[in-house]
Amino acid sequence: MSTAVVPGSFDPPTLGHLDVISRAADVFQDVLIAVVQNPAKSPLFTAEERVSMLREVAAEWPNVAVEAFEGLLVDFAREQHDAFIVKGLRAMSDFEYELQMAQMNHHLSGVQTLFLPTSPEHAYLSSSLVKEIARFGGSLEGLVASPVAALLKERYS
Amino acid sequence: MSTAVVPGSFDPPTLGHLDVISRAADVFQDVLIAVVQNPAKSPLFTAEERVSMLREVAAEWPNVAVEAFEGLLVDFAREQHDAFIVKGLRAMSDFEYELQMAQMNHHLSGVQTLFLPTSPEHAYLSSSLVKEIARFGGSLEGLVASPVAALLKERYS
Amino acid sequence: MSTAVVPGSFDPPTLGHLDVISRAADVFQDVLIAVVQNPAKSPLFTAEERVSMLREVAAEWPNVAVEAFEGLLVDFAREQHDAFIVKGLRAMSDFEYELQMAQMNHHLSGVQTLFLPTSPEHAYLSSSLVKEIARFGGSLEGLVASPVAALLKERYS
Amino acid sequence: MSTAVVPGSFDPPTLGHLDVISRAADVFQDVLIAVVQNPAKSPLFTAEERVSMLREVAAEWPNVAVEAFEGLLVDFAREQHDAFIVKGLRAMSDFEYELQMAQMNHHLSGVQTLFLPTSPEHAYLSSSLVKEIARFGGSLEGLVASPVAALLKERYS
Amino acid sequence: MSTAVVPGSFDPPTLGHLDVISRAADVFQDVLIAVVQNPAKSPLFTAEERVSMLREVAAEWPNVAVEAFEGLLVDFAREQHDAFIVKGLRAMSDFEYELQMAQMNHHLSGVQTLFLPTSPEHAYLSSSLVKEIARFGGSLEGLVASPVAALLKERYS
Amino acid sequence: MSTAVVPGSFDPPTLGHLDVISRAADVFQDVLIAVVQNPAKSPLFTAEERVSMLREVAAEWPNVAVEAFEGLLVDFAREQHDAFIVKGLRAMSDFEYELQMAQMNHHLSGVQTLFLPTSPEHAYLSSSLVKEIARFGGSLEGLVASPVAALLKERYS
Repeated sequence: MSTAVVPGSFDPPTLGHLDVISRAADVFQDVLIAVVQNPAKSPLFTAEERVSMLREVAAEWPNVAVEAFEGLLVDFAREQHDAFIVKGLRAMSDFEYELQMAQMNHHLSGVQTLFLPTSPEHAYLSSSLVKEIARFGGSLEGLVASPVAALLKERYS
Repeated sequence: MSTAVVPGSFDPPTLGHLDVISRAADVFQDVLIAVVQNPAKSPLFTAEERVSMLREVAAEWPNVAVEAFEGLLVDFAREQHDAFIVKGLRAMSDFEYELQMAQMNHHLSGVQTLFLPTSPEHAYLSSSLVKEIARFGGSLEGLVASPVAALLKERYS
Repeated sequence: MSTAVVPGSFDPPTLGHLDVISRAADVFQDVLIAVVQNPAKSPLFTAEERVSMLREVAAEWPNVAVEAFEGLLVDFAREQHDAFIVKGLRAMSDFEYELQMAQMNHHLSGVQTLFLPTSPEHAYLSSSLVKEIARFGGSLEGLVASPVAALLKERYS
Repeated sequence: MSTAVVPGSFDPPTLGHLDVISRAADVFQDVLIAVVQNPAKSPLFTAEERVSMLREVAAEWPNVAVEAFEGLLVDFAREQHDAFIVKGLRAMSDFEYELQMAQMNHHLSGVQTLFLPTSPEHAYLSSSLVKEIARFGGSLEGLVASPVAALLKERYS
Repeated sequence: MSTAVVPGSFDPPTLGHLDVISRAADVFQDVLIAVVQNPAKSPLFTAEERVSMLREVAAEWPNVAVEAFEGLLVDFAREQHDAFIVKGLRAMSDFEYELQMAQMNHHLSGVQTLFLPTSPEHAYLSSSLVKEIARFGGSLEGLVASPVAALLKERYS
Repeated sequence: MSTAVVPGSFDPPTLGHLDVISRAADVFQDVLIAVVQNPAKSPLFTAEERVSMLREVAAEWPNVAVEAFEGLLVDFAREQHDAFIVKGLRAMSDFEYELQMAQMNHHLSGVQTLFLPTSPEHAYLSSSLVKEIARFGGSLEGLVASPVAALLKERYS
């Protein structure tokens, strides 16, 4: 059976990410969250911390697994059996970049990409905004799951 | 098993539509092309003609069926077993309207929508442009399948 | 004191329109909803019906008045004392057209335009989508106020 | 020598159109304004009137000619010697449609399209807005050349 | 009375910023320019220098005050009496980010955001472009006020 | 005779850049590729390497020359005889930034900018994506010319 690979930095995972994961878990038989491990970037949380946060907040869906990967997404996707890529889309600015990536990934490997729209009430959510709010001690309610909020507060205290 | 419902006017089906259908046939187990029958519009081809064209050009995929429907798409989708909606996306202007429709359809029924990007070489294709070219006797090669080209030429002769 | 003129077709008013009106009523001292009466278009509801619906659904805000107008918006705005125009914005496709109108209206009259973003949960709402749903007997809950829903059902029965 | 074909409806020509024509006249050796004659549309001015208005307002550039055409633009362009298409771009919404047309025209004929950005102060100008303002007796100063303003006033009186 | 808080980096203030400030001063009773002091960024001018430049170039409007702030904008806005946020919008790419910020700020605090369109002739102006031009000794006429131009030349000499 | 200046970083040149250069070489008499040498950035290839790669891959067009420049593009363009700027456009996100640059460059110098659309099959290509793929050892076929692919592999080995 085919696997839906949901890639992302998830630094940290937001309720918008969870919304996309829950929709993917609803539509596809197997969902594999693929956490990007990019040595050229300096994330707030290590890949291991991000995998562990995602496993905790996605525990309710039995068909969702989480793994970190390094290198090209299409190489990771081809290692799975008969996989395709699933990305959440919030807004038009997301769309143009994601369309470019989807067409490049199809060119490189033949792997297909599907887009899942996020709920409108999560349209304004992003990991970088959430980090900025946490850095200045703002409320994280309605933005991230509570274990993620606890880790953010700890990191910025 | 779940069904991917691919709605559209398909007046007439273009090679861009076929590209989306072939991708959907590749990713999903069952694909149902849903031809919109809108009494308020005056299409060039009747719903029956459009269903028949699609059946001919999509004959190579055994997991693809074609049906016409009238009324709200979500009502048609709910009549199928455990269905979701699949739409092709060519460009940003498509995206904003389709995101609005996906969010409205989710609000009305809980039915999910997935987007499939078209191949870049079909980005400039649309049914209305194809009809304008046919009306002025331009070449339809690389734009529509040959049975569709034949019917277009007949209609405009 | 200055007046915020909120123009629109409101054919019919949606909960998205009400959201913009409630925000305008919160920020500005006087709000005047200006219902466009365009003889070249054939709306579902007459200007009188739209004024009457808006008066009913906006009754809770004492600083909101409703009037119909014909002709150029800037001529209507200039008849008010020291007015400016306020428009809700849902999405990027709205924005480009509204920016063009705001710049044209400023060129024609010096009248300023201010934009108010709608709540994300109303981003997918539009009068034309609401009419299409009503025409096919879909549920209008969460889309329009109940007096508007009742009139829509009556009109399409 | 090659010819820059500048197509459009020009119903009526605005100062934004003149800005693009003056830029094209500055960059290219020969400029041919191609007035679209579309029997399926009902313009305010006939093709003859639009050709005549353009000849009057573009008289100052000796390398600019004006002609009407019917049918596909690429067929008209191929009748010229070694022509390419030049289009003005005001805003993003223009761009996506014009990119689609340029790619379709290149597919159909190999004819290239070049885009010329308009001056920012003409970004909000369009023939349809100008007609609406004229219809309600608004001032046309800064929007169209004075012979065009005179004809618009006459038509709507 | 309510206060319009106009936030920004203003590194340095351009004529586009002044255009927005003059429009805000025209529409609202009290305008407070809020200069972002972000320790994570390295601006060309210190917050004090930017406050001082803005006070000089905005001196003609008696209802405009200038202050620097650190931390979340909504916390600063809530410290004012009954404030709302006012942002200038130049182009579509601005709009999507600003809409996201407006919705996040409303989520965090209930504070409303209003958008003011800039004049079309300032659509191409940005602080970063202005700095690049100054760095290479280009003319700053028509881009920034003369005291700002003098400081830029000094800084890059 | 006038010269078409085609500016860019070309770090490295892709097949999308070559497509724009070949179109420019087809339409204009003289094409000068202007390689940006920006001391504030750290490109993968030096300006000399990029000029040399471009000379190799553009050798087939006798009317195309390549040069590096530092400073403002409009200063470089004014040093040429009667030049204008030509830029390729892939997508909407390109367009808004390029329109801003074109309007700024026209303000600074009166130099005109023309846009050339890229072929749809190159819409997803960018120098930064190509570098990321090369860094992880992905295939560069269909993305860059073979001499460029060889240099990229060498640089990342």
